[in-house]
Amino acid sequence: MKTNETVLDLYPSRVEAQPRILERKDPVVYPNDFEGPLGKDDLAAYERDGYLFAEQFFTPEETEALQAELRRLLEGSRGERRPEVILEPDGDEVRSIFAVHRDNAVFKALSEHPKLVNAARQILGSDVYVHQSRINFKPGFKGKEFQWHSDFETWHTEDGMPRMRALSCSIALSDNYPFNGPLMVIPGSHRHFVACVGETPENNYENSLRRQEIGVPDEESLTWLVNQSRIEQPAGKAGSVVFFDCNIMHGSNSNITPYPRSNAFFVFNSVENKLTTPFAASKPRPDYIATRD
Amino acid sequence: MKTNETVLDLYPSRVEAQPRILERKDPVVYPNDFEGPLGKDDLAAYERDGYLFAEQFFTPEETEALQAELRRLLEGSRGERRPEVILEPDGDEVRSIFAVHRDNAVFKALSEHPKLVNAARQILGSDVYVHQSRINFKPGFKGKEFQWHSDFETWHTEDGMPRMRALSCSIALSDNYPFNGPLMVIPGSHRHFVACVGETPENNYENSLRRQEIGVPDEESLTWLVNQSRIEQPAGKAGSVVFFDCNIMHGSNSNITPYPRSNAFFVFNSVENKLTTPFAASKPRPDYIATRD
Repeated sequence: MKTNETVLDLYPSRVEAQPRILERKDPVVYPNDFEGPLGKDDLAAYERDGYLFAEQFFTPEETEALQAELRRLLEGSRGERRPEVILEPDGDEVRSIFAVHRDNAVFKALSEHPKLVNAARQILGSDVYVHQSRINFKPGFKGKEFQWHSDFETWHTEDGMPRMRALSCSIALSDNYPFNGPLMVIPGSHRHFVACVGETPENNYENSLRRQEIGVPDEESLTWLVNQSRIEQPAGKAGSVVFFDCNIMHGSNSNITPYPRSNAFFVFNSVENKLTTPFAASKPRPDYIATRD
Repeated sequence: MKTNETVLDLYPSRVEAQPRILERKDPVVYPNDFEGPLGKDDLAAYERDGYLFAEQFFTPEETEALQAELRRLLEGSRGERRPEVILEPDGDEVRSIFAVHRDNAVFKALSEHPKLVNAARQILGSDVYVHQSRINFKPGFKGKEFQWHSDFETWHTEDGMPRMRALSCSIALSDNYPFNGPLMVIPGSHRHFVACVGETPENNYENSLRRQEIGVPDEESLTWLVNQSRIEQPAGKAGSVVFFDCNIMHGSNSNITPYPRSNAFFVFNSVENKLTTPFAASKPRPDYIATRD
């Protein structure tokens, strides 16, 4: 396995035989003077919990336009066999489409929306760029679980992201209910890094985007994190946004209801935190999963 | 396929090539003068919605005794290979244990608890007996979905239950959260019977208790039922009970959280509604699944 020799590995994972829980060595909100939509209380809540739920972040008109584009995109993707289109593990339903900030004009514009970008700057304390984007469809009846994981664990090991200075925003494009597989988070878990066991298989992403099995925390660590805190489902109507730290532990249950749970998902990374060689994988993942330029 | 020749089949299912939605031909609450724990409003809500949620139905002491017995039962059942012990579809975790009202003294006593039995009499308008009992464990991390279904559809086709005059009570033995796979119901759906397609395979129960595939409503009918109404998760703390009609459409999502979702589950049937020959199966299911005497 080729490891990163030039940058110190502050968060080793997938290298030892036993799981370990390490403390975070990076700020959560980086000190800065950026102006943006988030108030002092918002930033304090984000710092404390590792996430922030913003109801009606987008206007009804903006939301409707995005929903219409989502439908077009889904229709156009059925039966398409390109790497950006990921199917559900047990069927032919579309689970996710990657790189929509690159390939789709409407979602490119969304990724540059001043409200979103400025919120990301306020948290990360620098200019930002899109590390990854995707639409998650989680169709009704057949949507499967997303296992618990820290995004950073994968971005660090497989993409070579050195520090915890990135965030995700999940933009609800259908109404979220407690019962259609909404995002679950463990508030406060972003302050702990669960070093996972298991070596990264060659081209792991080809399976992990359908059903993640490597880089998943062990049950004991996960139980410890939940017992320190609790589980929350910060989900609401279409047009709401959840901002969450790159290292917060999160996942979602399956969805057997008729209500799809669709969202647009952008990852903003600090320009001060550019990718290096992967810390625990033989080669970086493709550009449509992790922007490298 | 041997069909029931002596009793009129009011709810044919698994016999036609297309699904159909039929109207209910039986009362929901049967007129009677029984005394019991349910008030007039409770009975009216049950009649309207097809279910009733009763918080703190059992005392904390009663609940703790049941939880202790549950733990003993689970420990004792690990590795046991008898038909009453059902495993999760993808693993060796215990999913359910059947016939606890027959095999376990504590749960036998629970099945005879005056509050439970009298509530069942108030709804069904007659004396009652236990048609089926089980513990559902739905373990943390690995608990899988229970697909949407009407219990009556199975009890009618596979057990020969002629009329809709039975109910279930689900007794929470762990705290239910919106996110650990609690019971979901469609209020009002008990007034419609979804005739399902597909012939009952020989010994269907050997698979269906792990993952039901026959007797599951089609997506179109299910969407219609939800659009007529809504989805609710009537779940609460340990010691609460959900009473629900034999024909209400219900199911539950998977559970990737560390919190198990365990409950004791009793089905009371009216003594006026004894089982006959199955309406759409070659032979009745075993006695530990459906009491016949």
